[in-house]
Amino acid sequence: MTAILCLLGIAGMQAQTKPVYLDNRKTIEQRVEDALSRMTIEEKVAMCHAQSKFSSHGVPRLGIPEIWMSDGPHGVREEIEWDAWGAAKWTNDSCTAFPALTCLAATFNPSLSHEYGVAIGEEARYRRKDILLGPGVNIYRTPLNGRNFEYMGEDPYLAGRMAIPYIKGVQENGVAACVKHYALNNQEVWRGHINVNLSDRALHEIYLPAFKAAVEEGGAWSIMGSYNQFRGEHCCHNDLLLNKILKGDWKFDGVVVTDWGGAHDTKQSVFNGLDIEMGSYTNGLSSRAMFGYEDFYLAKPFLTMLKKGEVPVSVLDDKVRRILRLTFRTNMMPDRPYGRFVCNDHSTAARRVAEEGIVLLKNEKQFLPISTNQYKKIAVIGENASRSLTEGGGSSTLKVKYEVSPLDGFKQTFGADKVVYCKGYSSGPSMYGRVIAPKENQQQLFDAAVKAAKDADIVFFVGGLNKNHQQDCEAGDRITYNLPFNQDKLIEEILKVNKNVVVLLASGNAVAMPWLKDVPAVLQAWYLGSESGNAIANVITGKVNPSGKLPFSFPVKLEDNAAHSFGKLSYPGDSTNVFYKEDILVGYRWFDTKKIKPLFPFGYGLSYSTFEYGKIATDKKTYGQDETIKVSFTLKNTGKVDGAEAVQVYASQPKASVMRPAKELKAFAKVFLKAGETQTVALEVKVKDLAFYNEKTNNWTVESGEFVLRNAASAADVKSSVSIQIK
Amino acid sequence: MTAILCLLGIAGMQAQTKPVYLDNRKTIEQRVEDALSRMTIEEKVAMCHAQSKFSSHGVPRLGIPEIWMSDGPHGVREEIEWDAWGAAKWTNDSCTAFPALTCLAATFNPSLSHEYGVAIGEEARYRRKDILLGPGVNIYRTPLNGRNFEYMGEDPYLAGRMAIPYIKGVQENGVAACVKHYALNNQEVWRGHINVNLSDRALHEIYLPAFKAAVEEGGAWSIMGSYNQFRGEHCCHNDLLLNKILKGDWKFDGVVVTDWGGAHDTKQSVFNGLDIEMGSYTNGLSSRAMFGYEDFYLAKPFLTMLKKGEVPVSVLDDKVRRILRLTFRTNMMPDRPYGRFVCNDHSTAARRVAEEGIVLLKNEKQFLPISTNQYKKIAVIGENASRSLTEGGGSSTLKVKYEVSPLDGFKQTFGADKVVYCKGYSSGPSMYGRVIAPKENQQQLFDAAVKAAKDADIVFFVGGLNKNHQQDCEAGDRITYNLPFNQDKLIEEILKVNKNVVVLLASGNAVAMPWLKDVPAVLQAWYLGSESGNAIANVITGKVNPSGKLPFSFPVKLEDNAAHSFGKLSYPGDSTNVFYKEDILVGYRWFDTKKIKPLFPFGYGLSYSTFEYGKIATDKKTYGQDETIKVSFTLKNTGKVDGAEAVQVYASQPKASVMRPAKELKAFAKVFLKAGETQTVALEVKVKDLAFYNEKTNNWTVESGEFVLRNAASAADVKSSVSIQIK
Repeated sequence: MTAILCLLGIAGMQAQTKPVYLDNRKTIEQRVEDALSRMTIEEKVAMCHAQSKFSSHGVPRLGIPEIWMSDGPHGVREEIEWDAWGAAKWTNDSCTAFPALTCLAATFNPSLSHEYGVAIGEEARYRRKDILLGPGVNIYRTPLNGRNFEYMGEDPYLAGRMAIPYIKGVQENGVAACVKHYALNNQEVWRGHINVNLSDRALHEIYLPAFKAAVEEGGAWSIMGSYNQFRGEHCCHNDLLLNKILKGDWKFDGVVVTDWGGAHDTKQSVFNGLDIEMGSYTNGLSSRAMFGYEDFYLAKPFLTMLKKGEVPVSVLDDKVRRILRLTFRTNMMPDRPYGRFVCNDHSTAARRVAEEGIVLLKNEKQFLPISTNQYKKIAVIGENASRSLTEGGGSSTLKVKYEVSPLDGFKQTFGADKVVYCKGYSSGPSMYGRVIAPKENQQQLFDAAVKAAKDADIVFFVGGLNKNHQQDCEAGDRITYNLPFNQDKLIEEILKVNKNVVVLLASGNAVAMPWLKDVPAVLQAWYLGSESGNAIANVITGKVNPSGKLPFSFPVKLEDNAAHSFGKLSYPGDSTNVFYKEDILVGYRWFDTKKIKPLFPFGYGLSYSTFEYGKIATDKKTYGQDETIKVSFTLKNTGKVDGAEAVQVYASQPKASVMRPAKELKAFAKVFLKAGETQTVALEVKVKDLAFYNEKTNNWTVESGEFVLRNAASAADVKSSVSIQIK
Repeated sequence: MTAILCLLGIAGMQAQTKPVYLDNRKTIEQRVEDALSRMTIEEKVAMCHAQSKFSSHGVPRLGIPEIWMSDGPHGVREEIEWDAWGAAKWTNDSCTAFPALTCLAATFNPSLSHEYGVAIGEEARYRRKDILLGPGVNIYRTPLNGRNFEYMGEDPYLAGRMAIPYIKGVQENGVAACVKHYALNNQEVWRGHINVNLSDRALHEIYLPAFKAAVEEGGAWSIMGSYNQFRGEHCCHNDLLLNKILKGDWKFDGVVVTDWGGAHDTKQSVFNGLDIEMGSYTNGLSSRAMFGYEDFYLAKPFLTMLKKGEVPVSVLDDKVRRILRLTFRTNMMPDRPYGRFVCNDHSTAARRVAEEGIVLLKNEKQFLPISTNQYKKIAVIGENASRSLTEGGGSSTLKVKYEVSPLDGFKQTFGADKVVYCKGYSSGPSMYGRVIAPKENQQQLFDAAVKAAKDADIVFFVGGLNKNHQQDCEAGDRITYNLPFNQDKLIEEILKVNKNVVVLLASGNAVAMPWLKDVPAVLQAWYLGSESGNAIANVITGKVNPSGKLPFSFPVKLEDNAAHSFGKLSYPGDSTNVFYKEDILVGYRWFDTKKIKPLFPFGYGLSYSTFEYGKIATDKKTYGQDETIKVSFTLKNTGKVDGAEAVQVYASQPKASVMRPAKELKAFAKVFLKAGETQTVALEVKVKDLAFYNEKTNNWTVESGEFVLRNAASAADVKSSVSIQIK
């Protein structure tokens, strides 16, 4: 049947030409403006707050999609219920677990960070997420901070350089990275309200640069506010941090998201730079009464203010422009890739980061590597050899497709028949916010482990922390600097019956090592993700030559750490305020300047090879303010095996008008050299990166005069220096 | 820092050129073959069965997305739990409810069907669905069938023509339509196993043509097997239906999906044309033990057969090619639109379909339309005036954003102060598979309604069925042809106290109307969706001139219906077999051929206007087998208001070698005419469409000789005829 004359045309309600906001050929800004012009005030306000635990409103009427978020930063979190923290019990969401970000930082390898970002971004994209909540770049201030494992260490420059390629990698997938937690969230104790007091100089020189790099150079499309307060305002709606610095000085054009439940005030949420409010108290986690999404600060209360004229629509439009921009960059991006989920490439990326991040801390008389036939009876001791370390830690907990434990790795490498395993201790199940006592008799575990050690030719002790409450986990800090669960005692008893002990520590923090002098080999093994056991076995056997270096200093004792040198007001504060009394002297800046010897310094890590550094040279003697210093030196692999060295360049200003740290990292590179090979390492340092933050002018100042550049294998192992003049 | 010589390139694991399957510039077939060549046998098998209630596996490793399905066909179903039928309790999934498909068929307007398809496809797309489970095109064989409301009536040509634009509209959104239930699912009683016996001729002439049109002309990307058996095999794995007819004769290149739990045998599932198995017994709905997705017929048992060599890999590859093809057509379609959800355009589409689908069955002395000030006291009586009719009915139940009830419509139109509402009866809550007695005292409801009717100037009785169990609902047929809940008695009592009664019936089936002669006006008002009350009010007041026509015949009594004329073996069968003894004489073909007068004939519906048909003419007298007959006649709106008429052209072969029905619909059109306007209606009929299915040659035959074409206002209202000769 064809009705020629009489039928209505079929075009009907479908416009013949696409509206601008749906037209991929238009610029994002054109699309944003067009979409914005079509929206009602109610639709705009709806975009500014959550509709469920992990999603915020789109504009259904216009076909603008919802925004779905997922916890990172080490893997894509499992699906949970719409408005509760319980698992949704899907079966398609078991992810690849990547190593924790401390491990990534320890690689000192930005190209690996890009691989990491691409891979986790692909996983997020396949799982239909628009924002991945990571990376975390808060500065490591104290080894007690429960969340350091999710961050990238104590140095702002290292953290920034490592964050940039991660962000770019994620975002290449049409998934927004969300840099967190902005800012000054350096402890979990009282994190919800503690008010951080510090100098402008410490703020700008230590705590903000990694965020600045993530925004200005990484091009992050979103950022998450932190729970704590700064100068009396919560950081999720903090005028100075969000309006003046982030959106003003750094020209951030993306979206500010609260941490879940991080908003506390309507007016501040409206005016102080927040864009999307997530996780306010609808779930009983807080003591506040439960209420729904419509009662969020940026929901009805915001709408009411708008309708009363108490806030101009331009404030709303600015938020919505940012949210729309993010949507056009992600969900509505032309030719958005499809992502991938759990594949060989992702396992490879995870394993490579783990292998390059493991830090060989001690290796007396080349105790390591161990060939697969060297020992007949191998005792593996320690709960972390078999416990899941991808689970726990708080919001970064993962449901994984697979996790090769260290014990699995040892068995596969040495033969299961040669391996005896004893837990040695146990710590109870993985729980958020509280500790559940283990059921096992600890003395029996202890005794069995010592007996196994006695009977063995070699002992691999795999201990450390474990992402349980107060053991590297969100919402609580560690209680002591020592290893928990009686591990120090156990290691000491094992050493009494067997000298061939390799200690491997899982943690995202420094720990005390009272037994260090008696142990021939120690490895810092972080939380290594799905490929943990494979990476460890490869390093132990020399298949991989370790090249990780510490992204933070290990003090001998807690009091040697800067934050802990000024009493409780400096950490953890008086429950209302905390005062960063060490100011800019965080991490190695403190140890170097105060001439305190750390147990292991920042940037430290051994190799199965050795490296010889040539003398550092610069391309010129004198530089202007806008110039770039070209630094070079030779590096030779003087060992018998191929390997990689993370070389570091530090700068100092001997005679400054203000106090300056003894030295500060200004460049680094991971250099791969075959045995016997020599390369010339060429690095660049911009003169403007030699600046300090001038509290008199509220700006960055590079004073003229002498600066010294040093090449070094760690903050405590300077190889040579060169003097230059700045005009 | 820039390390010029020493850093690894950033390219890493990302291939520089996209693989073919991810390259939008390649053809779908190239992409399919490339993807297939990369898959393991386990990945292929995984694609052939569900992973959850409404999704099937993708290939995570390769980034090939999962397939997400949603029940249709009248709206996008709410989210449910991963592996249970309970609501997931999301708050973003309240949809637009469109009128049930019987109403769409009653519009006789294919361009409206396209609007419907586009709109529901947009809703499915916004909700991230890849397959929308609809439209349904099973032939209306008996008014007792619980699921007729989801189908498009008793005529295969009408159903096919109306299905095609719906499918195209859905699929323009990058969402696959899934035509259902293929085939012969003409009753819900014993649907899970009843074996349908019928002639090849009835199969091909009556029950398959709408499916054939959906596939060949609609280009449907998927089709759903039915629960019942045909010639001893379940239709979800039926060699004749799927391999020979659908994939062989019709060259269907899409995906065959089971109805949920419609697979019953591994070998048949493997070999008989099934591609994706959904909903097998994991939820306790069946008496079979619960088991998981890995135990589906097309899961482990299929893999085992493959590994044993009991089935060639080519059988698996054929299924996977089809599934991949669907994915490249939907989720991985270049420039896939984003859809929309609940918007003015969708409400408009829903309202227009409702307005054009409502059938004015009786309008004595132009009782209707009624002006808004005509009556002062208006009684609205009947549960369906206020009950949700978007809820219920089985899998097509909807969670709606809004639903304007008939009562809402009357109140808004006439003024709430003029309207008195009495339920008159109640029927208990909406339940699947069982009846729950209402709590109210029925006599009190009855008495109050009669009293209200007595006090009123006019009565709107809004009754009918209601999508409860055995009242137009999946998984059960109606028990009687009469209206339930004592409605006949109630109408009769109302008529005793008030003659000004308008009866509006919600249903997807014909019902008996013993009170018909006493009621001045009757409207068939279907299940009209979100805009129900608005559409009804617009028709009642004449804002819209009704133009719907019945897509099925209303018998006076049940026994007049063909299927019920041959005893229980013909309907519902003996619980094992059912015999379609009426053969090809379904619907009006029966009434016409057997000269039984229906209560209302197929194609019947009144207007507030009148139409004068000119004599039908053809462009020639004699036609060859491959020619097209151009039919024309004038149509004049002889009334005082603008209106539309669904004109129909029927064909007959007076002297055939086989029995042929008195006449069969071969063309139709909805013609809009201003008051007084005349148009020439031009329609086309292909000579090959005059064929009968020749059981001797197993093919279609057009015999030479005389054929008669008639233009008509309904199957019982022929206006004129013309004779032609076929060579």
